[in-house]
Amino acid sequence: MNTYLPGSHVIATLESEQPELLRDAGSFKQLIDRLVVQYDLRQLGEVYHAFTPGGFTGIVCLSESHISIHTWPEFRKVNLDIYLSNYLRENDGTVQAIFETIVAYFEARVLDHHKIKR
Amino acid sequence: MNTYLPGSHVIATLESEQPELLRDAGSFKQLIDRLVVQYDLRQLGEVYHAFTPGGFTGIVCLSESHISIHTWPEFRKVNLDIYLSNYLRENDGTVQAIFETIVAYFEARVLDHHKIKR
Repeated sequence: MNTYLPGSHVIATLESEQPELLRDAGSFKQLIDRLVVQYDLRQLGEVYHAFTPGGFTGIVCLSESHISIHTWPEFRKVNLDIYLSNYLRENDGTVQAIFETIVAYFEARVLDHHKIKR
Repeated sequence: MNTYLPGSHVIATLESEQPELLRDAGSFKQLIDRLVVQYDLRQLGEVYHAFTPGGFTGIVCLSESHISIHTWPEFRKVNLDIYLSNYLRENDGTVQAIFETIVAYFEARVLDHHKIKR
């Protein structure tokens, strides 16, 4: 392949009134694991960390780039990144589908949303 | 703390004429490890992956949020994210300093740069 094909990077801040979900790294990991299989992504590694007293961080490293989340239950906030390159396959629709699935999972309102082609 | 203090997220695409650095995950990891100590960040985990024939991905999960890199030596490109929250300390200057250090490391030109407060 001789031409770089920019992928989509969605950078969003969500607000959720489901603080128990914002504390539950394990359930979120199960969601991501399902999405990785559903959209035929290749996972290279992951880091999940639960903070005391609440909130978690998760980063999933993909052959296609990465997904990251940082939750703040005390502020009802989620900072979410979904970035998939288009190197071997056009993944723009997958970025949007994963974004919508995560928004629905948290029953969230989108406070801020950027989409960068890169 | 009762108020959410947005942090800085720098999202950049760099161009580097140093393809050997764009293939060298180990040297980049050493750089990041030094920066984590220098700026008193708290590392929670990391994933580095070198692709065949070249290029690498690195994601460093921090208590303060994350740093990610995806390199494309065949296109001389680097996609870089540096995101540090301001939860316990004002980290905006650290984001900028780490960004400038990585640009200098790759002797890179900045093709695209966004800074999002989130």
